[in-house]
Formats: sequence, structure tokens, C-alpha cells
Amino acid sequence: VTLLTDYGPASEHVGALHALIARRCPEAVRVDLAHDIPPGDVRRGAAVLARVAPLAGPAIHLAVVDPGVGTDRRGVAVGCHDGSVVVGPDNGLLAPLCARLGAERAVEIASAAHRRDPVAPTFHGRDVFAPAVAHLAAGGALDDLGPGVDPAGLVVLSLPPPAWDGALLTATVLGADRFGNVQLGAGAAEWNRLASALRVRGPRGRGVPARRGTVFADVAPGDLVVHVDADGHLAVAARDGSAVGLLGVAPGDRVEIAPG
Amino acid sequence: VTLLTDYGPASEHVGALHALIARRCPEAVRVDLAHDIPPGDVRRGAAVLARVAPLAGPAIHLAVVDPGVGTDRRGVAVGCHDGSVVVGPDNGLLAPLCARLGAERAVEIASAAHRRDPVAPTFHGRDVFAPAVAHLAAGGALDDLGPGVDPAGLVVLSLPPPAWDGALLTATVLGADRFGNVQLGAGAAEWNRLASALRVRGPRGRGVPARRGTVFADVAPGDLVVHVDADGHLAVAARDGSAVGLLGVAPGDRVEIAPG
Amino acid sequence: VTLLTDYGPASEHVGALHALIARRCPEAVRVDLAHDIPPGDVRRGAAVLARVAPLAGPAIHLAVVDPGVGTDRRGVAVGCHDGSVVVGPDNGLLAPLCARLGAERAVEIASAAHRRDPVAPTFHGRDVFAPAVAHLAAGGALDDLGPGVDPAGLVVLSLPPPAWDGALLTATVLGADRFGNVQLGAGAAEWNRLASALRVRGPRGRGVPARRGTVFADVAPGDLVVHVDADGHLAVAARDGSAVGLLGVAPGDRVEIAPG
Repeated sequence: VTLLTDYGPASEHVGALHALIARRCPEAVRVDLAHDIPPGDVRRGAAVLARVAPLAGPAIHLAVVDPGVGTDRRGVAVGCHDGSVVVGPDNGLLAPLCARLGAERAVEIASAAHRRDPVAPTFHGRDVFAPAVAHLAAGGALDDLGPGVDPAGLVVLSLPPPAWDGALLTATVLGADRFGNVQLGAGAAEWNRLASALRVRGPRGRGVPARRGTVFADVAPGDLVVHVDADGHLAVAARDGSAVGLLGVAPGDRVEIAPG
Repeated sequence: VTLLTDYGPASEHVGALHALIARRCPEAVRVDLAHDIPPGDVRRGAAVLARVAPLAGPAIHLAVVDPGVGTDRRGVAVGCHDGSVVVGPDNGLLAPLCARLGAERAVEIASAAHRRDPVAPTFHGRDVFAPAVAHLAAGGALDDLGPGVDPAGLVVLSLPPPAWDGALLTATVLGADRFGNVQLGAGAAEWNRLASALRVRGPRGRGVPARRGTVFADVAPGDLVVHVDADGHLAVAARDGSAVGLLGVAPGDRVEIAPG
Repeated sequence: VTLLTDYGPASEHVGALHALIARRCPEAVRVDLAHDIPPGDVRRGAAVLARVAPLAGPAIHLAVVDPGVGTDRRGVAVGCHDGSVVVGPDNGLLAPLCARLGAERAVEIASAAHRRDPVAPTFHGRDVFAPAVAHLAAGGALDDLGPGVDPAGLVVLSLPPPAWDGALLTATVLGADRFGNVQLGAGAAEWNRLASALRVRGPRGRGVPARRGTVFADVAPGDLVVHVDADGHLAVAARDGSAVGLLGVAPGDRVEIAPG
């Protein structure tokens, strides 16, 4: 069983999920994928889930980034080609992972027999999704959880693609990690077309000189390197520093990378 | 074995507890309930412990929020009706959980045979409580840990109750979560008496308009909703925003909720 | 298997390590020692690793604080006297633990058969070190990972020792914990020579009165106590407050402690 949420590291909400699963199925191998997703950032959660969950191999993947909890968005459990089941809200969070693992069938989580009673309107993670995962982990059937739905009908969130204007690249900030490395919605194809001397600019900042490179050590301490990161994304990093701080950018911002 | 502390997420102090328990009893199922309790906030730790630990079912519950470490406050292990044992400092942290689980007998942790030697005066979690838990997890007897004490004599912290002055409700801030939701020392009984249009005010802020509701989506983005949260507490939340930020409140503050 | 990194609590990078190890070896007992090491602070990571990892007993210890990832610094696996194997970058991070456990033999991690393909130049934790650990956890031989190297040749980082000028002690800040307690590169020998009334001063701050003591309760709330902490280090703590904040110090700073 893997777990990914925006509940915050070592928070009581994460603890509640673990406690419920461990109680029902003590022998389950539990792996925390990430709990530091920015609150409510479904897009970021979806990207992290799709790249990290497959490392665990076939598993039950529980993911909850759910700003619409309590509305009529569906909760689903999706059976995939490799035997994995992906459980969580159908708000765009699950679709990229399901596409990667090959969604084969899906159910809407609706059975009153496999949830806590009463269900708190703001904590479906504890009261709906974790009980569903515990049921599956203990060997229960997917179909017990509710009626079948079309696995091709999962909600998908789109992202503005990278854009070229001559030698000027514009790409969207997907997020940043603890080191202040800025990940962009672009990849190796865009990196290959960049010049070696660059200038990077966010919407609220001035242009900052940068170099196209492959490792942090390609630039002097404090300087920016534009590289392809460990997830295959174009990224901006500051050696021994924070690219987020230098550029002043936030998720969703458009960043310009020009020859410089 | 469950663990709750104010040591901070993924800190070395938490790691030390896990390492000691895993060494003595590798087969123990370890569940982190929470480690982001505000430093030294015994009252908050007690509330979180009492609501999350029962989700794990019968277990050994290790809890350490211990600003008085090294003074003469007792360390205790409390055997409860469901077979659980609750281990930690007797400073108010354990009493609410023990009351909920039904304390049946208790010992003061005093045996030199079941602690690390020497005991650091500022880290009883590592040197006293984790070894006691490891002893119990490995099948050791409660009575080995020290002399029996009265389970009804545990330290209890009290909280100012909610108060009505006509239609004006005053309640105490228990804490806030990562999403900026403010939890109050009141519940569904108070919620039922509130008007639908409200004004919420902290001790240092101006009144902020709010609505009585059940889910975040009951209000427009950025607006406040006063609801009963997933723990049964009256709570103030800002849809897609932070109620803590809007109200400027901190744990222990008194908040006024008036018709507006 | 123990894990220590500077990846940040509950981050996806930590999740990736756990996922890979759990996939290859589900029965491995995984213990998080710490993931809140300040980014790139190899010295701090080395100190935490050396004091916490031994609590877990014989184990495979995976440690990654690796600002030089992608350069020619070596990755190594070191077999120790107690049967432990220590895995990570050879940049000073591993040497103190290996010295404590007694390094007996070492290999450079170089085998293409035991890494992910391709290796991302900025994420050896996921692509090189975790696969090596999974190999060892599943019973694989140390020698499979690469050619033998001299275990006495590990990189060692040095630290300025504490210095006395009459009754004035100067020591280096090793780091601070969540409570704002400042740990210094000195120990019980220095504490024994201190006066009972003291004045503590960082490089950017004014002298702050303090007392020599053993527990936080030795001083009034908000006041400073100079004590020997749970790791045997000289440390400065503020009762119910933050010594870091009062002194304005950061890791690497030199702090003066004078009679006052």
C-alpha cells in the first residue's frame, strides 16, 4: 500500500490513514510516497503520484489531494494492468498514474458497508478512502466497493504546453522541491534546443543569467543551471542556493528562457 | 506500536524512537500518529492522541510531548480496557486517551532494568519511554516497569468551556491544521444554535464575515465557513484559503462568533 | 534498513527510496532516521547518522546528503564489524558512523547491474544507492556492487575544536533542533570548566546571560541554560523558547561563552 496526500508531513491526518490500514491489515507493507504536496495542488499531486508510485511495483495506491471534498466529485478505485489499484478522488489526481499503469476497470466508491459511519464531510481520506484501501489490502474485491464506471472517463487536468517564439522558450512552473529547484512543464526536447548561455525570467522578477548544463557543478556556487531533472523535466537549479528565491516564481507561473 | 511526539516530522529524535523499537522488536507494526504537534503543546498533543490513537485498535501507544522533562513529573504506562497500553509523561498528555480507552491499571516507569544507561535528562523519549515500549512490544509485562500507581490519578488539563452571551458564542482555539482551519473548543451543540450569517473575531483582529455550513464548498473561494469538523469540533475554515491568516489567531486565543 | 537524507520530511524523494526498497524486498524493516537534515549540510548529516544509526543495531544504513551528486565523488558501500553495511556518497557523510561501527571492507558502487538505467545525474539516491541497498537487503553480496577500495580511505570532514582563552570558551555551532536548542562542537569536559553564571554571544549578536545547568527547568522561562545535551554535546537552550532566535546563530558560527 502506498500513500500520497497533501496532509503535511507527520500530521495527524496521515497518522489516521496509517492507523486504519494497519488495524485492518497489520501485515500490509505501507510506503509513504509524499505528504508534502502543496495544500490543494491537485496538478502537482498528480504529477508526483504518476512518477513515484510505479517505483513501488504492483500495489494499492491511496492518493488524496481533495480540495473539493464534500461536493459531488466522485471517489473511485481503478484496477490497472499490472494488478495495481488506484484509490482516491476523481478530480484529476489519479488519471496520469492510471494512464501510465493502464486502467482496466473502475468502480465508484459508494458502498456503505466499506466506509466509516458517519462520514465526515471534510475527511473522506479517513472515512471513505482508507477503509476502501483496507478492504482491498485484506483481500476484498474491487466490485464490493460500488458500481462499475468507465475507466476511460476519469477527470484529466491539462497544462499549457511549452511554447517557442524564435529562440525564446516559455514554460509553466510545475513546482519546486526543498532545494529550491524549479521544475517546468517541458523536457529534454526543449533542453536540446537551448543555447549554452541563457537568461531566465519569471513573471515578477528580472532576468537572471543561467547556463545550460547537466549537473549542479556545471556552474559556480550561487549561479543558475538549466538542466533535465531526474524526472525528465526541464528544471532550473541554483548551485548551493535556491532557484525559487532567485526567480521569485510559484507553481502555475510562466517562465521565459532566452539566450543571454 | 503507535508514536506521537512534538519532535518534528522526520527528525532524528523520531528516528531514535523507531530505531530502538525496531531493534528490540523488528516484527512490531509501527504507526506514526503525528510528530508535528507544536513544540511543548501538551494540550494539543493530548487532543490529537485521544482522537487518532483509537483508530489503530488495541496497541502500545507511545506519546511524548514533554516540556517538563527532567523535572519530577512522572513517567507512566497505563493498561486499558481494550488491551492497549499508553506510555509517556504524566503531564496531561495521556489522560484523555486513557479515559476514552478505559484505564484499568498503571505503573510508574522506574525500573533501571528497562531504560538506557545513563538517562539523558532531556531525552526521556529515547532513554526511558522507547525502551519501555520495546519491552512491552517484545511481550514483557507491564509490572516489570515499576510500581503500581492509581490509574485515576493521572494529571488532567482543563480547558475553558464555550460560553454564550445571548447569541454571541465565545470559544477557545485548540489549534490549526496545515490548511489553516481553526479548531475550537466547542461542538455540534454550539453549531446548532448559530445563525446562518455570522461574524468571527479573534482577540487581535477585526470581525470577518462567515457563514454557518457543512462543507468548504458552502461558501465562495476565500470566504469563511463555520462548520463541525471531522473530529466533531466547531471549526472555522476559509475555502481555498487560511482561516488562521484571516483571523490572526493562535492556540489558546478566545474567538467570538456573533450573528452578522 | 535505515534511511537518512536531506530530502525533506515526507518528500517524494524519500518516497522513491522507500518504494524501490519495498518493491525489491517487501519484508525489509525500514526505519527513517532523519530526513530534515539542512539541505547539503554534510557535516550535520554525518553527526546525526553517527549517533542515531547505532541505535538500530546491525542494519543496512542508507545515507544521502550529496551536494556533489554528478561530480566524481565516489559512491561506496562499507561493511562494518557489527555486520552493518553503510551505503552513500563518500563525501564525509559516512566516515564518522563507519569509524564508530568499525569499517572492515568497502567497495565503490560501480556495477551497472545494480543500478537503474539510465542514472539521472542529480538523483543517485534513487538510481544508484537505493538499488544497491535493495540488492543487499535481498541477500546480495557486497562484492557484487563494485571493486574493493580501502576502508581507511573514506573522506573525513574536520571541525574546529573548542578553544579556551582563560575562562572564555569558543566553540562551533553544529546545528539546532526544532526547539531552537543550539548544539556546539564541545562536550562534558568543557561544561565542567564553565562558571555557573555565563554570557553567550554569537558572531552577529550581543551577549545573552545564561546559566550552567542540567535541565531546562534550571532556569526561568525564556532564559538560557548551557548544558550537556542528550548526545553528549555542549548545548545552549532557552526554557520554553528558542536559543537560536535569542543568539541569532547558524551552523558553522563560532560562539563565545564567557563568565557573566
